[in-house]
Amino acid sequence: MIRTGVVGASGYTGTELIRLLARHPAVDLLFATSESNAGAHLDDLHPSAPPLELIGLGSAPLQDVDLAFLCLPHGVSAAKAVDALNAGARVVDLSADFRLEDEGTYGEWYQTKHPASQLLGEAVYGLTEYARECLPDARLVANPGCYPTSILLPLRPLLDAGLISGTIIADSKSGVSGAGRAPKQSTHFVEVTGNFSPYKIGRGHRHLPEIEQQLRRWSKNAPSVIFSPHLLPVPRGILSTIYVPLTPGCDEAIVREAMLEAFAGEPFVKVLPAGQLASLAHANYTNRCVIGLTCTGNTLIITSAIDNLIKGAAGQAVQNMNVMFGLPEDEALP
Amino acid sequence: MIRTGVVGASGYTGTELIRLLARHPAVDLLFATSESNAGAHLDDLHPSAPPLELIGLGSAPLQDVDLAFLCLPHGVSAAKAVDALNAGARVVDLSADFRLEDEGTYGEWYQTKHPASQLLGEAVYGLTEYARECLPDARLVANPGCYPTSILLPLRPLLDAGLISGTIIADSKSGVSGAGRAPKQSTHFVEVTGNFSPYKIGRGHRHLPEIEQQLRRWSKNAPSVIFSPHLLPVPRGILSTIYVPLTPGCDEAIVREAMLEAFAGEPFVKVLPAGQLASLAHANYTNRCVIGLTCTGNTLIITSAIDNLIKGAAGQAVQNMNVMFGLPEDEALP
Amino acid sequence: MIRTGVVGASGYTGTELIRLLARHPAVDLLFATSESNAGAHLDDLHPSAPPLELIGLGSAPLQDVDLAFLCLPHGVSAAKAVDALNAGARVVDLSADFRLEDEGTYGEWYQTKHPASQLLGEAVYGLTEYARECLPDARLVANPGCYPTSILLPLRPLLDAGLISGTIIADSKSGVSGAGRAPKQSTHFVEVTGNFSPYKIGRGHRHLPEIEQQLRRWSKNAPSVIFSPHLLPVPRGILSTIYVPLTPGCDEAIVREAMLEAFAGEPFVKVLPAGQLASLAHANYTNRCVIGLTCTGNTLIITSAIDNLIKGAAGQAVQNMNVMFGLPEDEALP
Amino acid sequence: MIRTGVVGASGYTGTELIRLLARHPAVDLLFATSESNAGAHLDDLHPSAPPLELIGLGSAPLQDVDLAFLCLPHGVSAAKAVDALNAGARVVDLSADFRLEDEGTYGEWYQTKHPASQLLGEAVYGLTEYARECLPDARLVANPGCYPTSILLPLRPLLDAGLISGTIIADSKSGVSGAGRAPKQSTHFVEVTGNFSPYKIGRGHRHLPEIEQQLRRWSKNAPSVIFSPHLLPVPRGILSTIYVPLTPGCDEAIVREAMLEAFAGEPFVKVLPAGQLASLAHANYTNRCVIGLTCTGNTLIITSAIDNLIKGAAGQAVQNMNVMFGLPEDEALP
Repeated sequence: MIRTGVVGASGYTGTELIRLLARHPAVDLLFATSESNAGAHLDDLHPSAPPLELIGLGSAPLQDVDLAFLCLPHGVSAAKAVDALNAGARVVDLSADFRLEDEGTYGEWYQTKHPASQLLGEAVYGLTEYARECLPDARLVANPGCYPTSILLPLRPLLDAGLISGTIIADSKSGVSGAGRAPKQSTHFVEVTGNFSPYKIGRGHRHLPEIEQQLRRWSKNAPSVIFSPHLLPVPRGILSTIYVPLTPGCDEAIVREAMLEAFAGEPFVKVLPAGQLASLAHANYTNRCVIGLTCTGNTLIITSAIDNLIKGAAGQAVQNMNVMFGLPEDEALP
Repeated sequence: MIRTGVVGASGYTGTELIRLLARHPAVDLLFATSESNAGAHLDDLHPSAPPLELIGLGSAPLQDVDLAFLCLPHGVSAAKAVDALNAGARVVDLSADFRLEDEGTYGEWYQTKHPASQLLGEAVYGLTEYARECLPDARLVANPGCYPTSILLPLRPLLDAGLISGTIIADSKSGVSGAGRAPKQSTHFVEVTGNFSPYKIGRGHRHLPEIEQQLRRWSKNAPSVIFSPHLLPVPRGILSTIYVPLTPGCDEAIVREAMLEAFAGEPFVKVLPAGQLASLAHANYTNRCVIGLTCTGNTLIITSAIDNLIKGAAGQAVQNMNVMFGLPEDEALP
Repeated sequence: MIRTGVVGASGYTGTELIRLLARHPAVDLLFATSESNAGAHLDDLHPSAPPLELIGLGSAPLQDVDLAFLCLPHGVSAAKAVDALNAGARVVDLSADFRLEDEGTYGEWYQTKHPASQLLGEAVYGLTEYARECLPDARLVANPGCYPTSILLPLRPLLDAGLISGTIIADSKSGVSGAGRAPKQSTHFVEVTGNFSPYKIGRGHRHLPEIEQQLRRWSKNAPSVIFSPHLLPVPRGILSTIYVPLTPGCDEAIVREAMLEAFAGEPFVKVLPAGQLASLAHANYTNRCVIGLTCTGNTLIITSAIDNLIKGAAGQAVQNMNVMFGLPEDEALP
Repeated sequence: MIRTGVVGASGYTGTELIRLLARHPAVDLLFATSESNAGAHLDDLHPSAPPLELIGLGSAPLQDVDLAFLCLPHGVSAAKAVDALNAGARVVDLSADFRLEDEGTYGEWYQTKHPASQLLGEAVYGLTEYARECLPDARLVANPGCYPTSILLPLRPLLDAGLISGTIIADSKSGVSGAGRAPKQSTHFVEVTGNFSPYKIGRGHRHLPEIEQQLRRWSKNAPSVIFSPHLLPVPRGILSTIYVPLTPGCDEAIVREAMLEAFAGEPFVKVLPAGQLASLAHANYTNRCVIGLTCTGNTLIITSAIDNLIKGAAGQAVQNMNVMFGLPEDEALP
């Protein structure tokens, strides 16, 4: 049994993670923390969640777990990662703190000095499908952002095959749970329902440097990205509609073959047959990334759907844990 | 032209009121205040609202208006009513501060000492259809609560005709704008969408004493009420399903006749034909109260629908203003 | 392994059942039928469902299964039940065809002659918590209606304890999946979203005779019921707000004790602590019935929540199967 | 008074048009037709609509009206336009039948022979802002499609100024009323709510040739368009996120100036200040097109919002009527 703890369990990501861990046959969940709700039970906050008692982080026996999941805000998470590592635990960090390798880039986008920059070089970027070799030995895993997961997964095979010829446009749409559980004007029901709104489009969202960094790691000639997130009036799910300029001579058959080959045998990536498009309904409540491919002239339009709380956060964290500890990769994942 | 001002314009009720006043041909809107958003324009907060500048209350020329509308929280509103009256304005107060005539009852339900109890005796309860005689001379009008409006309107004719024989059960369902614009956990989109939840059922909601007080004013033998509010995942609208035990011998024909007679010529009350039931779609975006009648054995089931922001708040406030100032009652009302 | 087949798999209930059976470790699902979609795969219709091929009923090997689940419209289902029984299979029928024991009552409410009235006497009414003794030997199980499940479960202990003194009012609200998957004007997104509407209130809905029959089976002096269903703008879930007149002297403590005693050890019935009310969020995506209790004067207000597709249909069908075949009752149920 | 009639009044567009005409001070609405609902009243179908009686088209006095609005399916509408013109009425056709000038293109995209191709040359494309000169003399106006309205309006000034350097990508999202009132599986509440889905992306949607035809009319070197529509879980509204490659040296200031100049004085086009993005909330329930501008590198991202039923259909039809008959252009428009 893997002994685990969840730090920051009361948010949407933390609670989704608890649900997944609660049904994992190889996991022993030793604690779940919440500073703002210490003493309460998880089902007081989320009526259908397991009735777990929430404790303060100070009371959490970090030294007793093999793995600590951190579901904390960026800027706060890194310091707790240090504590957990010092206590001997491995760490999967679901915040953004260890996703960017460059301290300066982090400071620029997150507007704070990195609290544990000495660990940036060690952290493994846990986009599981492309991190399997590093995960078994990793002490510290940076779980990817939700938008980047939906965008990076389908782009890698195209990059590897040299099929991309210029700037990529990712027009992404996300459900509201991506904005967190703390109540804000912008997540008030009356403001969201019946509405649909873009935000931080172009080159303004923090997930952009994460996406571009990863593309550069995969290819020296990686294209730049225009990234336009929008807020959907749904609780969960991301659909990214991605416009990729293809190299001359490339067509849908070539793209499809590259994709099918790259994702053959992948338990959580599904490439739809020609003519089908991905929608939230394909991926919600699963750990899958579902991909549709449409070519028009020299432009490939990818539709890529994930559940932002599962493949985009808690599910991928469990998937990473499974690989880190040598378990079947799909154990306990929907 | 009636010179008016709106105090507390940035909430849902205040903004709805501004929309109505902006298209009222006999109204000159001199100011709109917001403490938290002074300096902003209303369409910064509500993109489709008029681009009115919001000012602090301290800068509002109360002395220049004929009528001040107060859209403030209870407990805060009463003191501002005093200011406005002292400045020579008449007042329509959309808060709960002047709805209960008894200071003790107010203190018990709103858990604060009434800030201006000397005015309680003077305030007219502005359920327009039953207040027309008092409104022209009223200095201070207490605009009714949204739930009470949906419940009281159809009960009056039954009470007058002596058709009610016991405790009434009002099972009411309201859209989220009724909970106000300030973000709370309970109004977070993710908590509300896909959910439906009762709250303060039985005899726990502040609108209960308001309902029972009004029934007692209309009849010495007024029945008691069980009142069960629920939160609907919609932005606006109230449907009350009201179970009324009838006196022996009373049937649907008798009830219907009493209703039709009472509401003949009413511009904003519509009694549906036999077999039809009221729904939110009947009343939303209008100032109407739409009423369906169904008898089963000795029980009358009333379905009563209003738009909580219009007939349940801003619309009724304008309707009251129209009567107060001798204008056509339906002027500028949808 | 229990060999099963699902007849009528393409609707919401059938698909939910397939999802549950697909993860049941003791079940071998041999076939899934759909007349209108034979040849298609289930995930063509429901993108996240298992990719099962749908076949015509004529091709279904009824003789090879231990248990056939029927998810067909009433009137159609009974004849197929005969076929399945004749082929040697046991049957759980999720339609209304075997819920009413009296042929005349069936004809009156469903406006058709019963296609297999000879089986009415044999069918077991499968409200699992109250049918455990009969299920192991049952050949034919009538799976209860969704509304009746939410209403009957909490009423039984009160009836047994003699605590009910008169007519019960059940004000129920259901999500749209309860209206079936066939597109109708009344289930069009634009008609439903933002709306809330009562239908067939009083004594007009087909679930009423089912509820009253069951109450009469449990008690000779069973009270009558007023039943008011409403359509909620949510995909799934039922909340019934039930008003029960109590016998003199009865109070919340007595009611609570009767409830807790009756449901002690029940895996799928949860009685909430005093002061808490049931909401859809308590029960959705689970097989649970969650019950809140509020007394006001002599009236008990029960809030009872279920997921209409799970405890109200497919989940209870699996629960019944588990008991019929001697498996752990909660196997594979969320 | 302009005497008008609405042919095909029972759908979402027809009903919205009736609402607008009912409050228009210069309009006399003589009839409203519906083949499927002749004899019913409009408020039987849409509870808050005016209680107008619907008649069969055969009974409609076409010869008595100055203007007939046609809200019919494409393929059906053209023949009725001929009837109305022959009866002496002018026509605003809200279907697609007269939007494409080329008979062959129409046949290819709408897969039917055009029923009245002799009129194609005469029809005026009624994007009001760019058709004001032709409308006063027009007998037959083709009201633009909803998506094209949101896309074409902001592109014209850029085209005129020669600022566009290549293929435009329009990633558009529409509410469900755009799919019509006839119930379909794809508009079932349960399929739509919580979901978000692309359809006919790339070069597959019928509004694409309409968009490209209009761009070519405005410029000989018009760019081609990639058009990706998506279905939003909202009842109304369109947001188009449009990616425009700019000519070298062009920046946001130049674009903004061109836009502000082009739309100066326009009552229904609003260009947002720098840093603001358009959302559905900006345009819903109004006849406005609200435009946000964001430059990133050499790419302009336009966010353009309209209400598909108003500026995208019924509102623009009334706007066209106002210009056709010399009335104030914004009369009776929200």
